[in-house]
Amino acid sequence: MMTSNAEMRQKLIDLRRTFHRHAETGWTEFWTTAKVAGILKDLGYTVSAGQEVIKTEAVMGRPSDEMMAEYVQRALDQGADPDWIKKMDGYTGAMGVLDTGRKGPVVAFRFDMDAVDVSEGQDGSHRPRNEGFASLNDGAMHSCGHDAHTAMGLGLAEILMENRDKLRGVIKLLFQPAEEGVRGGKAMAEKGLLDDVDYFVGAHIGNGLPSGTIAPGIGGFLCTTKFDLVYTGKASHAGAAPQEGRNALLAAASAALAMAGIAPHSDGATRLNVGVLEAGSGRNVIPSRAVMKVETRGSTAKLNSYVYSRAMEIAGGAAAMYGAEFSVAKMGEAVDASSDSELVDLVAEKAVRIPGIVKAGPLMNLGGSEDVSWMMKAVQRRGGKAVYFGLGSDIAAGHHNEYFDIDEEMLLPGTLLFSELAFALAGSK
Amino acid sequence: MMTSNAEMRQKLIDLRRTFHRHAETGWTEFWTTAKVAGILKDLGYTVSAGQEVIKTEAVMGRPSDEMMAEYVQRALDQGADPDWIKKMDGYTGAMGVLDTGRKGPVVAFRFDMDAVDVSEGQDGSHRPRNEGFASLNDGAMHSCGHDAHTAMGLGLAEILMENRDKLRGVIKLLFQPAEEGVRGGKAMAEKGLLDDVDYFVGAHIGNGLPSGTIAPGIGGFLCTTKFDLVYTGKASHAGAAPQEGRNALLAAASAALAMAGIAPHSDGATRLNVGVLEAGSGRNVIPSRAVMKVETRGSTAKLNSYVYSRAMEIAGGAAAMYGAEFSVAKMGEAVDASSDSELVDLVAEKAVRIPGIVKAGPLMNLGGSEDVSWMMKAVQRRGGKAVYFGLGSDIAAGHHNEYFDIDEEMLLPGTLLFSELAFALAGSK
Amino acid sequence: MMTSNAEMRQKLIDLRRTFHRHAETGWTEFWTTAKVAGILKDLGYTVSAGQEVIKTEAVMGRPSDEMMAEYVQRALDQGADPDWIKKMDGYTGAMGVLDTGRKGPVVAFRFDMDAVDVSEGQDGSHRPRNEGFASLNDGAMHSCGHDAHTAMGLGLAEILMENRDKLRGVIKLLFQPAEEGVRGGKAMAEKGLLDDVDYFVGAHIGNGLPSGTIAPGIGGFLCTTKFDLVYTGKASHAGAAPQEGRNALLAAASAALAMAGIAPHSDGATRLNVGVLEAGSGRNVIPSRAVMKVETRGSTAKLNSYVYSRAMEIAGGAAAMYGAEFSVAKMGEAVDASSDSELVDLVAEKAVRIPGIVKAGPLMNLGGSEDVSWMMKAVQRRGGKAVYFGLGSDIAAGHHNEYFDIDEEMLLPGTLLFSELAFALAGSK
Amino acid sequence: MMTSNAEMRQKLIDLRRTFHRHAETGWTEFWTTAKVAGILKDLGYTVSAGQEVIKTEAVMGRPSDEMMAEYVQRALDQGADPDWIKKMDGYTGAMGVLDTGRKGPVVAFRFDMDAVDVSEGQDGSHRPRNEGFASLNDGAMHSCGHDAHTAMGLGLAEILMENRDKLRGVIKLLFQPAEEGVRGGKAMAEKGLLDDVDYFVGAHIGNGLPSGTIAPGIGGFLCTTKFDLVYTGKASHAGAAPQEGRNALLAAASAALAMAGIAPHSDGATRLNVGVLEAGSGRNVIPSRAVMKVETRGSTAKLNSYVYSRAMEIAGGAAAMYGAEFSVAKMGEAVDASSDSELVDLVAEKAVRIPGIVKAGPLMNLGGSEDVSWMMKAVQRRGGKAVYFGLGSDIAAGHHNEYFDIDEEMLLPGTLLFSELAFALAGSK
Repeated sequence: MMTSNAEMRQKLIDLRRTFHRHAETGWTEFWTTAKVAGILKDLGYTVSAGQEVIKTEAVMGRPSDEMMAEYVQRALDQGADPDWIKKMDGYTGAMGVLDTGRKGPVVAFRFDMDAVDVSEGQDGSHRPRNEGFASLNDGAMHSCGHDAHTAMGLGLAEILMENRDKLRGVIKLLFQPAEEGVRGGKAMAEKGLLDDVDYFVGAHIGNGLPSGTIAPGIGGFLCTTKFDLVYTGKASHAGAAPQEGRNALLAAASAALAMAGIAPHSDGATRLNVGVLEAGSGRNVIPSRAVMKVETRGSTAKLNSYVYSRAMEIAGGAAAMYGAEFSVAKMGEAVDASSDSELVDLVAEKAVRIPGIVKAGPLMNLGGSEDVSWMMKAVQRRGGKAVYFGLGSDIAAGHHNEYFDIDEEMLLPGTLLFSELAFALAGSK
Repeated sequence: MMTSNAEMRQKLIDLRRTFHRHAETGWTEFWTTAKVAGILKDLGYTVSAGQEVIKTEAVMGRPSDEMMAEYVQRALDQGADPDWIKKMDGYTGAMGVLDTGRKGPVVAFRFDMDAVDVSEGQDGSHRPRNEGFASLNDGAMHSCGHDAHTAMGLGLAEILMENRDKLRGVIKLLFQPAEEGVRGGKAMAEKGLLDDVDYFVGAHIGNGLPSGTIAPGIGGFLCTTKFDLVYTGKASHAGAAPQEGRNALLAAASAALAMAGIAPHSDGATRLNVGVLEAGSGRNVIPSRAVMKVETRGSTAKLNSYVYSRAMEIAGGAAAMYGAEFSVAKMGEAVDASSDSELVDLVAEKAVRIPGIVKAGPLMNLGGSEDVSWMMKAVQRRGGKAVYFGLGSDIAAGHHNEYFDIDEEMLLPGTLLFSELAFALAGSK
Repeated sequence: MMTSNAEMRQKLIDLRRTFHRHAETGWTEFWTTAKVAGILKDLGYTVSAGQEVIKTEAVMGRPSDEMMAEYVQRALDQGADPDWIKKMDGYTGAMGVLDTGRKGPVVAFRFDMDAVDVSEGQDGSHRPRNEGFASLNDGAMHSCGHDAHTAMGLGLAEILMENRDKLRGVIKLLFQPAEEGVRGGKAMAEKGLLDDVDYFVGAHIGNGLPSGTIAPGIGGFLCTTKFDLVYTGKASHAGAAPQEGRNALLAAASAALAMAGIAPHSDGATRLNVGVLEAGSGRNVIPSRAVMKVETRGSTAKLNSYVYSRAMEIAGGAAAMYGAEFSVAKMGEAVDASSDSELVDLVAEKAVRIPGIVKAGPLMNLGGSEDVSWMMKAVQRRGGKAVYFGLGSDIAAGHHNEYFDIDEEMLLPGTLLFSELAFALAGSK
Repeated sequence: MMTSNAEMRQKLIDLRRTFHRHAETGWTEFWTTAKVAGILKDLGYTVSAGQEVIKTEAVMGRPSDEMMAEYVQRALDQGADPDWIKKMDGYTGAMGVLDTGRKGPVVAFRFDMDAVDVSEGQDGSHRPRNEGFASLNDGAMHSCGHDAHTAMGLGLAEILMENRDKLRGVIKLLFQPAEEGVRGGKAMAEKGLLDDVDYFVGAHIGNGLPSGTIAPGIGGFLCTTKFDLVYTGKASHAGAAPQEGRNALLAAASAALAMAGIAPHSDGATRLNVGVLEAGSGRNVIPSRAVMKVETRGSTAKLNSYVYSRAMEIAGGAAAMYGAEFSVAKMGEAVDASSDSELVDLVAEKAVRIPGIVKAGPLMNLGGSEDVSWMMKAVQRRGGKAVYFGLGSDIAAGHHNEYFDIDEEMLLPGTLLFSELAFALAGSK
């Protein structure tokens, strides 16, 4: 018996609230991944998880192993299935595959699962607080709607499995970790999961689009590289033996000033921000360590690369100036990407037939970064087509705000749009 | 009945261990102050404490009121007398006065009570750990011997009270908070406690002098000013609206470089260290706040003042360069000081007659800062005489090290030397 | 008797070579101005010159009075008419007015007269050298074609005067000094010469357009501000009394680094360049003076103003950091401007009817700065129409190169196009 | 017939004025050297000059070969003997040797010959101007008294030759070029001229000592290194292609700030000064070249070396930061040195017996640098003894001032003191 739309609506809301309650930040989505994997498995999908879907060498910005152990424990304490946790082997993310056995295209859908590094608002008028599904985890909140993405991905999974006889080819449902900070997309793309994909669909809820509308394609992705730069000098007593120190703080200060001064590029906009600098241990000690959190951006890969390579020159030069060592760790990276017009048109066409979607607007300009771009590039590089669209939803506060909340009435239309796209691309002829 | 030397030796060891166990850092010596005040009171001293001995306007580097509430509660939880805690009214420090009623000089002794911001070593061979008197308080340890100073001050109190008939004039015993970071001395001196003092005696245990020796005077105090510099700019999204930000991180970086470059002075050595710099909140946000912990030093007050005034020019200029606000808070300050030769000679003469002290060496060069200098200056300014001497003690590890420990056999000789000086200066004729 | 086209062609070549030979850089065009004024006067124009056409308060980047005296003397030595030199009273630039006495519009044409700060190439194959009209003046060469502009302006003057009966309204011919470095345009515009102008026409030869073509309008003017920044500190012996100095070199270094780091603007491209920094007098002296030559740019006035105002904050802040004084002198400035489509269309229409012009291409993007923009703005602000077009000419080497040379066969077509525009705008009805 | 003291006094004054008139700055003392060599030769000395007395590899701060050709020509134009000029082969400096043929010590005297880079004062009350011996050469003036040193050296030469029968051993008279900027001393010392010397005597006139007094020894020489640092980047148009530039100006600015911030040393005073910075060519061009004139100092060789090696790290690091090349050229260097007490006593003893010298004061502290230190070290390293004493002279204005002038009445006493020392050290027994 098929799930009715009314049942699906309620399921989606329940799932979304469950994930909202168990908000987990990037690379720590152990509870979430186990939940997703369990449901996919129960539905009949072939499920991979953790290291099976993540190329560990391409992982960026993952917390230390010590911290990961704590997050794993937290997930177990909150009831995560130990078998899945074990299978994941320290890494989050999952994929469910539905192979129809019939010749046809490979179609992939991507849903990101991670929460934001913010503690959920305490105000009683905040619905998640009011209705009892506020985040259990301090410092983690679904204030960017990835809980909705994950719920819709599972709703889609159910619809497709119920209708598997009407499909051909292969359906892949990718549940990505660590989109915030653009840390996880590359590791999933480089695992090769997209290498046989003909059609790729991703989406984001909110982004300023009102409920009832969609943007059939999103462009204007900025390329970005996030990196941490650590200077290691030598401590010494600032009064008694200043000459013995190697001042990591001054190396970092010099690097920060020079990085801010990287020349603009005549081809287009570039950005660099040293967002955080933490240096030194005590007032009377020559600082032996400095940590900088930096990001570069460019409207094209070439421009981002220009800024990044200049920043690396500066990083090394400043170390040499102060006789310090330095190390650089990439903490995130996203490339540019664009939606294929063929799929954009399909999204627009299908969307307006869905109850609850009244308007398909024009292409939207992201003006930011999203690491779905790695997956889109991977598909397009091999001749496949990709689209990333915007699903409208009125929101209670801006993205990443502690009082963010979505319009849950958009969960069903969103899920139905995904399934309509699946049938359009891989329906039985 | 008089306390015997053997009894006093044991009392001093017990007291020192009690204080060691209840280590409290600068301005949080609530348990310690209450203990000291209670003992002095029981001995018959007129006791003042907290705001009665501290000029609050001259306080530097005191933790926030929120944190102070926690420290007060900790002291109460550890058994501090609530009456004394209440009387102190948020401030630590105590003074016991013994007025003989007989005409004579006013003689003051100073003992500092605060612990260092270090967690006590865990190693089982560390005697305080081994014998059960390691610090109860994480992040606070008596690794500079002020526990010994406090114990000797109370031992001296007992001896003098027992022998009050042999004294004339007035004896003042000052128990100072927050010597570490040179934060408390000025507030006690400016309260006027020294304004009627004819003779002033301070001392420090350890400092590289072996057990059995003393340095009858210590000179070479460096003048120093400790300050925190806070830049407040304006946050904005580093990618979308960089022009709206006011970059506090770059203001701080520019200030740090310029402060390091303050020209040397032909009159003597100067120092400036930006020991800590913490700026920014997120990688993609123009940093709106930066905090710098800075210290200046000079071998004379003029030299320290030269560096400090140049640093203030730089602080303001860097703020103007980046359109940021700035504020400066003095966190500590010490002046130069020297011991009067009359008292130095007296210390040397008396010391070598004390069992356990075999040698009075030459004057010692501190090569650092000590805020006893404010008290010595206050006394000397009015024509009084002051001395600050070194009491030898083998130590288990360097000052401020987590395995620091003193030779408890020097507690009795030290206490006896203090009492001999009292009798020499204020003994009945 | 009217001048024939053949006669005019030869006159224009002769005039252009005369001006080429007497190349004078910005604000020193004494010989050139006297020559222009004399010819205009002889033709029957009402002529103003020097301070009559220049608002001295708005002059930027003029050499010192001492140097001006030398330039005046050079002009006299080279045969300039002393009466005109005297009338100019130290300032260059001229205007000839033809008032037809008939009601009609005021139409202004602008020709810039200054040479570039470059010494003319010595190679014998260079036509000006080869044919004897190379610059007489070391360090000054017409390597941007303003000699051609001036010649065409005088050719136009002759044609219009010969045909004054066919004109109505008033014709103003403006001969501007100091376009290089965008120094003179503002002073002429602010003198009020354009305040009654209905139609304004300016043009530039070369700019990459081949002979026989024109660009009927030029857009994409960058706003720019050129300024000199001088820091004055205090010298002292670097070894014996470093503390007495106030280091202007370090103030300038700090300012240069900070200016390079002015945040980009999300509205569009900005630029800042510290092109020259000269500081200090001797190796062992704390530098007491530093001079910086800086320019800001922006694709709009708002963007240029954003960069300039941030630069001023930095200039002042850096002075304060190092206890130095500073002064800023504007050395040039240009605003943005755009040609009115009505006149652009007219230029295109008239151009292709002129023998020697075969093609009117599209609008051209300047991608640089031109201070004709001040005049265009002055006219447009009051409701007038303005156009700045490009006159094609093959060139022997790039603009500002020492081997630059124009195609003299374009002088006649250019002059005829100017006159056709005059008749179209102010011809008798 | 022996020269009388009265005759010698007049000769010394005449010689000093001749040298004053022909003032030549460091490494350009062609006229002076030829004059000195000629006189020595005529007196009977064995004379070496130019490359015979200079180790060219150790030469620092010599002007370019092109400039040297002009200086040679100037010397010839002013009447220098072409034979000597030819023999010198581009290098200045001379030595006269008097070998008595009798067994005895080798005694060396050193006189420096170069003028200062300053144009002589124009005021009529300035005696050299007034009495017709002001410097012929613009930008060169004997404002440090080396003209007096050279004259006394020749006076000594005459006295010793006249009295050669009363001497034994070997006398070497060294006339050193380029003491200013401490450029020439090392090249003469490393030529090996001092390798057989048993006693070495140098002196300086003035230095704040009044006429009639001497300082029998001078100590407190500061070690110093003078170097030029050149950054070479890449020019590009600052508006159109800023990304293509490599900004040498910013590299230099960053280096200057970092060099100023080299940490002080607990062993003693250090100094670093970037005295001159010249960078960039045009306001709208990314600066491709920057030149810095820097000096380091330290009260010991170790301290100077500490600062210099840190400066080199900074120089390289700043180049790397900005993708620029850099080169360093040592322009001068002096070491520390001290006078041997045996000779100091001798100077004091002999001085007070000379008419015109009334007092031998205490040792003097130079507080600066003098490259006679290289020669003193060379002698002392091999067991010889050295002294550098101060000869008092009232002066009209400070050293290096354009109105500096000495008291010529001290020339004879100075010369007599030198000869008394020669007889004391190498007189026949």
